[in-house]
Amino acid sequence: MCEANVYIRTGDDQEELFFEQVDIIEPFEEGLRLVDIFGKQKFINAKIKDMNLLNHRIILEKLQTVAVK
Amino acid sequence: MCEANVYIRTGDDQEELFFEQVDIIEPFEEGLRLVDIFGKQKFINAKIKDMNLLNHRIILEKLQTVAVK
Repeated sequence: MCEANVYIRTGDDQEELFFEQVDIIEPFEEGLRLVDIFGKQKFINAKIKDMNLLNHRIILEKLQTVAVK
Repeated sequence: MCEANVYIRTGDDQEELFFEQVDIIEPFEEGLRLVDIFGKQKFINAKIKDMNLLNHRIILEKLQTVAVK
């Protein structure tokens, strides 16, 4: 099976597991919609930062909400 | 093997094969850097539109250069 595990970059060399065995990733509004192999879906306001398919790893980066100074 | 074939959306229901057996996709400048399982790389000014890992399909959408009217 060729699903991937999706991680969120939380720091320079830190990643946090967000969703396992993901099959589908597509844009949804400002962020992404992810669907795993069981059909469960998650939404996240993030963009794809890095993908390594042979290692089954996809890294996301959260989008910041714009702070008005 | 879990590499994917990368297509470019050229029309509403049309896609064109761009790069086969891709392992790595990462941001590069305004677009993407893709590396296949043999280490060959390609650059494209595009973003990821859709991914279906079980079907080994990744769809890109070309980024338009901004036209000044």
